[in-house]
Amino acid sequence: MVVIREGTGSLSQRLYEALSSAILSGSYEAGAPLPSSRALAAQLGISRNTVNSVYERLEAEGFVAIKASAGVFAAQGAYAPKKPPSRSRDSDYVGFRKKRNDIADFKSGLPDGRHFPVAAWSRALAAALKKASPLVFGYGEPEGRPELREAIASYVGRYRAARCAPNQILVTAGTTQAIGILGSVLLSGKLRDAVVEDPLTQDIKSILQDRGARIMAVPVGETGLDPSLIPGKLKPALVYVTPSHQYPTGRSMPIQNRIALTEYARRVGSVVIEDDYDSEFRFDGPPLPSLQGLDPDNVIYIGTFSKTLSPALRCGYLILPARLIRAAREAKWLSDLHNPILDQLALADFIKSGRYARHIAKMKRLYRARRACLAEALTRTCEAKGVEFEIIGCAAGLHLVVRFPGRRFGAAELESLESSGAKAYPVSVHSLKPKAWEDSLILGYGSLDEAEIETGVKSLVKGIASIETI
Amino acid sequence: MVVIREGTGSLSQRLYEALSSAILSGSYEAGAPLPSSRALAAQLGISRNTVNSVYERLEAEGFVAIKASAGVFAAQGAYAPKKPPSRSRDSDYVGFRKKRNDIADFKSGLPDGRHFPVAAWSRALAAALKKASPLVFGYGEPEGRPELREAIASYVGRYRAARCAPNQILVTAGTTQAIGILGSVLLSGKLRDAVVEDPLTQDIKSILQDRGARIMAVPVGETGLDPSLIPGKLKPALVYVTPSHQYPTGRSMPIQNRIALTEYARRVGSVVIEDDYDSEFRFDGPPLPSLQGLDPDNVIYIGTFSKTLSPALRCGYLILPARLIRAAREAKWLSDLHNPILDQLALADFIKSGRYARHIAKMKRLYRARRACLAEALTRTCEAKGVEFEIIGCAAGLHLVVRFPGRRFGAAELESLESSGAKAYPVSVHSLKPKAWEDSLILGYGSLDEAEIETGVKSLVKGIASIETI
Repeated sequence: MVVIREGTGSLSQRLYEALSSAILSGSYEAGAPLPSSRALAAQLGISRNTVNSVYERLEAEGFVAIKASAGVFAAQGAYAPKKPPSRSRDSDYVGFRKKRNDIADFKSGLPDGRHFPVAAWSRALAAALKKASPLVFGYGEPEGRPELREAIASYVGRYRAARCAPNQILVTAGTTQAIGILGSVLLSGKLRDAVVEDPLTQDIKSILQDRGARIMAVPVGETGLDPSLIPGKLKPALVYVTPSHQYPTGRSMPIQNRIALTEYARRVGSVVIEDDYDSEFRFDGPPLPSLQGLDPDNVIYIGTFSKTLSPALRCGYLILPARLIRAAREAKWLSDLHNPILDQLALADFIKSGRYARHIAKMKRLYRARRACLAEALTRTCEAKGVEFEIIGCAAGLHLVVRFPGRRFGAAELESLESSGAKAYPVSVHSLKPKAWEDSLILGYGSLDEAEIETGVKSLVKGIASIETI
Repeated sequence: MVVIREGTGSLSQRLYEALSSAILSGSYEAGAPLPSSRALAAQLGISRNTVNSVYERLEAEGFVAIKASAGVFAAQGAYAPKKPPSRSRDSDYVGFRKKRNDIADFKSGLPDGRHFPVAAWSRALAAALKKASPLVFGYGEPEGRPELREAIASYVGRYRAARCAPNQILVTAGTTQAIGILGSVLLSGKLRDAVVEDPLTQDIKSILQDRGARIMAVPVGETGLDPSLIPGKLKPALVYVTPSHQYPTGRSMPIQNRIALTEYARRVGSVVIEDDYDSEFRFDGPPLPSLQGLDPDNVIYIGTFSKTLSPALRCGYLILPARLIRAAREAKWLSDLHNPILDQLALADFIKSGRYARHIAKMKRLYRARRACLAEALTRTCEAKGVEFEIIGCAAGLHLVVRFPGRRFGAAELESLESSGAKAYPVSVHSLKPKAWEDSLILGYGSLDEAEIETGVKSLVKGIASIETI
């Protein structure tokens, strides 16, 4: 007796499911006869043609053997009782982190999503879709759309004093992927030494190490990474720096170190990676000219739209010396082929029309006011509570670093700050040297408005005042 | 005499550029005095305040030293004459390939961009933007948006007989990235053997090898990969298959091999990767149920929207056994953090509203007609020209494979076909065994309409008829 389920799907699909499940689960053993098409059609009140076409499909997929004049039989090897999948443990479950509204979260590197240019972006997307040729919906080239590469080359030339032609631009899915691509291109065989700044974003270390890098960390001083501290016998495959606004310390590299660094790279035959993640937001004077502009042959520039527009777009770019274009293009192709095309076209339009520069100018005013608000609130509140502090690295970006001499921020202290109502981030987790930067906190102000900053600072300083000094 | 350029940018920005360039290029040697702010202001007809603020900036960036009452001097180490970047050779230039309109391009794996649902997708994007909360414009989670993961889980359960919960879904930037992530997760230390089908898409081999894989190729027979051909002593880290529609041969794996393969994986403690790249377009009966549904604990499923919707979206997904969720999530984070968020929300809406299923149904009718047109035109034209041929692997997807017994398609023959007006693709470039499949061509029909297919087949067969048989 064949029972087919009620519900949606064509009759023949449901019959197919009923019979294949019955064979899979062993209701018909190998060699056992299935009902004749005449009997089955009569039982179910359907046409013999329907039954026959289902039997033909089952035969094509190996469930049954049809023997002329003898009938239809369950095939060998088509029995596989369903195994229930393992229950996932709670620890396997990956859900969304909840954002607590009652806590001021000083997370760094976050632009304010409340100011994303929704209407302008919506128009740019609609315009891109409207004028899209059918080819736009096919596969693209790994380096990205020519429209976007031209817009970026012109933008970085004008605003970042970078020197490049559009064909040196490779569009990436943000800075993370850009670093991964460079790791693949630059690290190989014996060329495995990667000079990095200490402290350093943890993910960057992991990405380079995954590609075989030996990490050689150079402590960041007042003026950023000093190439004279790199061991003389080292021939690094790459030197990774954030010269405009060191992450996390917030310091900037003056021209002397910039020149020394490019000359070092030239001398030892290495290449400098300039990660320029948030230099557009420089408040004390216009952005520093890029390192890339000093020596386009030996500096690779990484740019991103994550801080200026939104990290949700997952879009950034590399500016490559000519000799590295082909290898980087290949690495991008084997990573994810290319960036989504429609987004690229919308972004090209957004930049070319000048709306991107206007958005940056608007956000810069907003963030400058927030930085001032944070610095002022910190000063006022710390002085009122008698908490010693020093603000460092605040000339640019979406975060600053504050030292609290005599204090130490470990897991317990950070938890206690959070229960006071402020989530702050220690510099020490980014330090490659143990027990360094333990008295310093990163305070991001990009995604908090001035009222939130005021309240947050009150909670933060109250929490810090209650931490014992050492 | 300081000369500042005409043009856009604030006066102070142009003065800054003029002075910093002069110092960088050596016009002021280290220690040389710069004009006093009074003299410079008078010369340029601007305020002393403007000059002083530019000097302060130059001091902050290390270009000058300001000595109280003595004046402003070019700093040490700020001289770096601009080096012209190397001219890129022509071979470095990466431009867009031109599509020739006078040639029928039988490229496989391409859906027809002329039928992308522009209006519906535009509405889905606009709706996603309209209801987006500010958090949507921040960073997301590597596994993807919960809305999309729920929509996918429900879709694959219904249409692909896959068994999974939304928390087993990881959204990826297409199949390429999905395979890269699996390579990172599954290959490590001694676990380096990867069993693959032969022939195999070349990129997949490269991606796995980049992550340290030792490739063990098993020839694909009439019924796909036969696990009894895997050497008994091998403990592969993974077995990669395309069971619904083997690429490129187009063959399907019957239920016996499916069961045998999952049992093999279970026995040796390996895992099967099921790349289900185009099974939605199955013309002879409904899609084969997925391998994943047979054994969710030992099969990883790779799905994609590249063939059903558009490769330009760069969106696909993995269905993972619980034990691999965390590692895959980590690998996605270190690849590119996560997929663009707005696209994910639009796609979730597109699937949930039923528009995705309707689009697939529409495209399936279109592609079925094109397949019939191609098969019919091939038969008619080959018979008229007396060219022997055999169509294989045409039950599904956007391409079929044709054998031309006695012919051999090398570079010269393919070029001659192209000059006849048809671009076809050899199976042999995907073959890991040398001198195999030399008589077979892959003919994609996804992006050609029926008139283009008719013309293309005429050119193709004319070209083939003129190739000497061996």
